[in-house]
Amino acid sequence: MTDIVKGLRIVEVSAFIAAPYAGLTLAQMGADVIRIDPVGGGLDHKRWPLTRDGQSLYWAGLNKGKRSIMLNVREDEGRALAHALMTKPGPGSGIVLSNLPARGWLDFANLKAMRDDLIMMNITGNRDGSVALDYTVNAAAGFPLVTGPADQPVNHVMPIWDVLAGMTAANGILAAERHRRQTGKGQFVSLALADTAFSTLSHLGYIGEVQINGDARPATGNQVYGTYGQDFATLDGRRVMITAFTPRHWRALVTATETGDRMATVADLFGSNLDREEARWEARDAITAVLKPWFGDRDLGDIRATLDQAGACWGPYQSFTQAVEEDPRISTDNPMFETVDQPGIGPYLAAGTMLDFTAAPRAPVSPAPQLGADTDAILVGELGLGDGEIGRLHDAGIVAGAD
Amino acid sequence: MTDIVKGLRIVEVSAFIAAPYAGLTLAQMGADVIRIDPVGGGLDHKRWPLTRDGQSLYWAGLNKGKRSIMLNVREDEGRALAHALMTKPGPGSGIVLSNLPARGWLDFANLKAMRDDLIMMNITGNRDGSVALDYTVNAAAGFPLVTGPADQPVNHVMPIWDVLAGMTAANGILAAERHRRQTGKGQFVSLALADTAFSTLSHLGYIGEVQINGDARPATGNQVYGTYGQDFATLDGRRVMITAFTPRHWRALVTATETGDRMATVADLFGSNLDREEARWEARDAITAVLKPWFGDRDLGDIRATLDQAGACWGPYQSFTQAVEEDPRISTDNPMFETVDQPGIGPYLAAGTMLDFTAAPRAPVSPAPQLGADTDAILVGELGLGDGEIGRLHDAGIVAGAD
Repeated sequence: MTDIVKGLRIVEVSAFIAAPYAGLTLAQMGADVIRIDPVGGGLDHKRWPLTRDGQSLYWAGLNKGKRSIMLNVREDEGRALAHALMTKPGPGSGIVLSNLPARGWLDFANLKAMRDDLIMMNITGNRDGSVALDYTVNAAAGFPLVTGPADQPVNHVMPIWDVLAGMTAANGILAAERHRRQTGKGQFVSLALADTAFSTLSHLGYIGEVQINGDARPATGNQVYGTYGQDFATLDGRRVMITAFTPRHWRALVTATETGDRMATVADLFGSNLDREEARWEARDAITAVLKPWFGDRDLGDIRATLDQAGACWGPYQSFTQAVEEDPRISTDNPMFETVDQPGIGPYLAAGTMLDFTAAPRAPVSPAPQLGADTDAILVGELGLGDGEIGRLHDAGIVAGAD
Repeated sequence: MTDIVKGLRIVEVSAFIAAPYAGLTLAQMGADVIRIDPVGGGLDHKRWPLTRDGQSLYWAGLNKGKRSIMLNVREDEGRALAHALMTKPGPGSGIVLSNLPARGWLDFANLKAMRDDLIMMNITGNRDGSVALDYTVNAAAGFPLVTGPADQPVNHVMPIWDVLAGMTAANGILAAERHRRQTGKGQFVSLALADTAFSTLSHLGYIGEVQINGDARPATGNQVYGTYGQDFATLDGRRVMITAFTPRHWRALVTATETGDRMATVADLFGSNLDREEARWEARDAITAVLKPWFGDRDLGDIRATLDQAGACWGPYQSFTQAVEEDPRISTDNPMFETVDQPGIGPYLAAGTMLDFTAAPRAPVSPAPQLGADTDAILVGELGLGDGEIGRLHDAGIVAGAD
């Protein structure tokens, strides 16, 4: 956490990853993010992974540092409370973030009538509002057919388009709020999850390959297209990923593995200069054949010491367990991480913002709220309701708090 | 393009993906982004994919809408020009973006001495400044060991951590610039590529699985952990990805495939209610066995019509070629895309910003500059140099322009 964007107040109505990730990003930079959920929780409240007690580690991860209120928006009175939060006056307020359809109680024109300079950031699946999830977008974008060794599509496990959409939506809010402070005008900002993947095809050259070159990227397993990258097995049953994108990293790799003479022979064989990445690509299988025994004859510890000493660019493959238990970058040695005591779950390592702002030092990482933990405090503090009124709303099933 | 952040002026010193992607994001939102490259281009200027003429489609993709100047920063005079651009007065200026080490000519304290409210956004590999690339970070983060069907690590092809770092850096700049307008203070902002992956392990619950549950996510191929997702082969040799995260999507899938009776039997078999995602996960192999013939007996066109009619959540796998040639979402039917005429490459489809800002409509997508195309215009327009002086700088090899 940091207070770099302190003063921003965002009302989030969301589920799953993209919008919650956007809210998380802004909350961890100091925004006050109020997440509204239906009584009992939304679609994602019990999303796996769960603890043995049935608490969602996923929900807890994506909602750190937010406040939680439960409102029954099927009732007029619940909707009115939600709208009052969304359209509350104040220079940093009046910002709504959602990946639910922007209609019905989330209709922008209706909200704008209540606060003219409202900003609403809305994430859809496809641009036309039709459904698309990370998994279906990814299938359409081409990556699974060139991932992995087989001729079957391989889906990524990391929901990359969702996370990218979330970070993009955080950008959208910051850009729109900047614009509002300059012009006084709010606006509706929209983002289609599918476009995160399709814009990437443009930005990284994939569309050009098809349209200009008339071909497309081949599947190359764990090799890195157009340069040198390869994974190797080690003597002790681990695997490592080796890259040599630059002449410096290539020379470090050759030095570390003492393969200078043999690589000179490989260069002769191909009549090329292996300092050039396209030459390394052409000769990649020969390079790999030369390097393979060096890795296969050594334990990871020896490999680490030798490659690090030489300044090579490499890394070990780690399971999630190895990453969490062995990698010092995933520990409180890394200022991004702290141990937080997550209500209902217990103490564990949690990440704050990835960004280090020297003008706004890190504050403690906040856990996620329990669902509805802030209901009454928000009704009092934000909407000025009295105890009697709040009690009536609870009794009528319009609001609910944490048990 | 849009002018939502018009007035921001960013000097980018970068290579490969993360920082160029951050600059691209801001340029496509209306920032004036000046990319400084060494004479002849940086490490990424010929990065694959290339056209048959040797032009980098990758470089062209990542530098759309920027201006390009070539400076020889090994010479004092070249460095002085770079510093003058970076520290030029003006409310939106004084912002430096780099993924090169922030030392030597990119030393923050030195630049701050020239402009006290300078903002510098710096991306490193690891937090300690040591090298880490998308590929080595990914290996460390655990995902390759649970991706794909085999027991070998499978690297993603999409450089997800690089792209996420780029979008995060764009956020960092917007947040720091907001802070500067509020306080008058600049700052050094840093981001480690590795932390994009490790924070994700926290946000999506992976760390909790290891530390709280004492186990870790298993490899599940193309299935989706904890709910129902599966790929299927079609009669005409295509593949589709089917998901059913919500009760509504599950019922749509069952209706479309006319498998209600058989799914009721599956539910009986497991004594569970398949409207619940954890029940679908438990019964996933039986569900897949029931569905498989339905997909195998039909062409993609029939499947599309039937599933869309029912409102199921699914998508076809597409190769890059199929995506570009067949998917209307990757065409000028999508307002994000336009045909641009890229100098040295030709006309092709290019994506502008993913975000639609209603208060700042889309302007045409700008191509990438040729390397050095703006050298003289920047020296005149930004630094006020005269023709004679510019000629001398060219002759002395301090600056260079496009051929």
